[in-house]
Amino acid sequence: MTVPTVKLNSGFEMPLVGFGLWKVNNDTCADQVYNAIKAGYRLFDGACDYGNEVECGQGITRAIKDGLVKREDLFIVSKLWNSFHDGEQVEPICRKQLADWNVDYFDLYIVHFPIALKYLDPSVRYPPSWTTADGKVELGKASIQETWTAMESLTDKKLARSIGVSNFSAQLLMDLLRYARVRPATLQIEHHPYLTQTRLVDYAQKQGLAVTAYSSFGPLSFLELDLKDAHGTTPLFEHDIIKGIAEKHGRTPAQVLLRWATQRKIAVIPKSNSPTRLAQNLQVNDFDLEASEIESISALDKGLRFNDPVAYGLDIPIF
Amino acid sequence: MTVPTVKLNSGFEMPLVGFGLWKVNNDTCADQVYNAIKAGYRLFDGACDYGNEVECGQGITRAIKDGLVKREDLFIVSKLWNSFHDGEQVEPICRKQLADWNVDYFDLYIVHFPIALKYLDPSVRYPPSWTTADGKVELGKASIQETWTAMESLTDKKLARSIGVSNFSAQLLMDLLRYARVRPATLQIEHHPYLTQTRLVDYAQKQGLAVTAYSSFGPLSFLELDLKDAHGTTPLFEHDIIKGIAEKHGRTPAQVLLRWATQRKIAVIPKSNSPTRLAQNLQVNDFDLEASEIESISALDKGLRFNDPVAYGLDIPIF
Repeated sequence: MTVPTVKLNSGFEMPLVGFGLWKVNNDTCADQVYNAIKAGYRLFDGACDYGNEVECGQGITRAIKDGLVKREDLFIVSKLWNSFHDGEQVEPICRKQLADWNVDYFDLYIVHFPIALKYLDPSVRYPPSWTTADGKVELGKASIQETWTAMESLTDKKLARSIGVSNFSAQLLMDLLRYARVRPATLQIEHHPYLTQTRLVDYAQKQGLAVTAYSSFGPLSFLELDLKDAHGTTPLFEHDIIKGIAEKHGRTPAQVLLRWATQRKIAVIPKSNSPTRLAQNLQVNDFDLEASEIESISALDKGLRFNDPVAYGLDIPIF
Repeated sequence: MTVPTVKLNSGFEMPLVGFGLWKVNNDTCADQVYNAIKAGYRLFDGACDYGNEVECGQGITRAIKDGLVKREDLFIVSKLWNSFHDGEQVEPICRKQLADWNVDYFDLYIVHFPIALKYLDPSVRYPPSWTTADGKVELGKASIQETWTAMESLTDKKLARSIGVSNFSAQLLMDLLRYARVRPATLQIEHHPYLTQTRLVDYAQKQGLAVTAYSSFGPLSFLELDLKDAHGTTPLFEHDIIKGIAEKHGRTPAQVLLRWATQRKIAVIPKSNSPTRLAQNLQVNDFDLEASEIESISALDKGLRFNDPVAYGLDIPIF
């Protein structure tokens, strides 16, 4: 199974399908990563606050040791958490995360949110969260430019081959593009048929950024967080439009949802605990949707965002 | 007719109702400003690209000369156009605009859009526009921080008593607030029942910025620009909810729409060519809507934005 890639503005190639590590349990994580590599996955999308980077590292270390892959075959993505936006904190935490992964560079390191929280030493609380140990949100003072300048120096030091941003709106991205010495290679955003963000996707792609979709299955990822909107919305796997297209192509609804993105050069990072679905999610580039099918899926857009700090009870209205 | 004010974080008081100068014709502008002062208006909301600042200045100069008001009774607002975002261009253009108005300070000077266009010398094209003389959009390189730092120095030099921003999204405003030495005193945004932007308004007010609504009458301002959405939407003056509330209070729909804003401490800047409506628009703080009425008006929100560069055919997707 060869996964197609997209060429980043940094010159590196990024697989269009990867494995997303959000909410992957610590006790199964190393095995899941190992098995995903076995199934053909090469891109792993992790983050500081997912709290499983050590186990991710164990999985890839074992796979490399067993000769399944070499380091250079993998595309490892991690993210800078909000509480490390201060310029001088970026490199130390990146180095800690690299150590957790047991690698000496990230293929892609991303500013997770355009939100600066006050620095909290990893020795006090790690993995980090939205709040301090006593449950308070404390905002930080680092501007995006300060953080980005520090991100740029990670590429100079070869700690990250490419750098990117996530959850940025068009206005903030435009501002960043005016001062960036190293342009972001990717923009990672919530993207599914209920939240298409067409303008933002088009803008980023025109500016030479690769777009990565997270939560490609929409509400599904958020059921376990017990978000009201997630329970109150038709699951995409059960939506008549998606089911109809899936049946027509002899594919699963999941495959249709992923292809809807990758056919437009948007990378996807699904996760699954099931070996069958793991393999199916990777097989999404050997068939094409018709333009009218892509349109009818995109027409399901209703601006329904799930991954929103406000929905988590935080008074940080970035969207 | 005394208009209530809102106290800005700069310490100055800003009237909650003013006269908006967008699309006020050059040949009537001086008289309209003069008559508005006579009718009790004290705040005038102008901008570089409205192309009528000389005439605005003539109106206020005559009113001051005739003893209707003193300079210090007025609250004069102007805006930095997109093509003057380069740090070194901010003060010169502000000084030119002050000269046009025939005043030596602005009460409030605002970054009009979070969009930097390439500098175009006023001797080449003035008033400025979205495009160069040959119709091209040429983007500039100034970051918002560069522009804002120059804006801050306007307050140091007493060329502007307060400074603010307009058309900023929450993410960009959050970033600005992290590095601002002088915090913006106001945020001016499109705000009417079809586009309430509740989260943005709440955020700005919590951060101590006064919010000013433009286009309070919704589609009405945009009919003359022949925007499709403006023609295809029920005019707010004819909307049953608005008409019903207006009848109940013995007011005009316009007065209800303005009160819906000012009762929530949002300043408004309507314009009118009619002396009757000019007076009516100022009389919007001597009655109160019920909480349920405010809610039913706010419930008309449908995210319908009119003042959008993309709607004008420009490839600048800031919203």
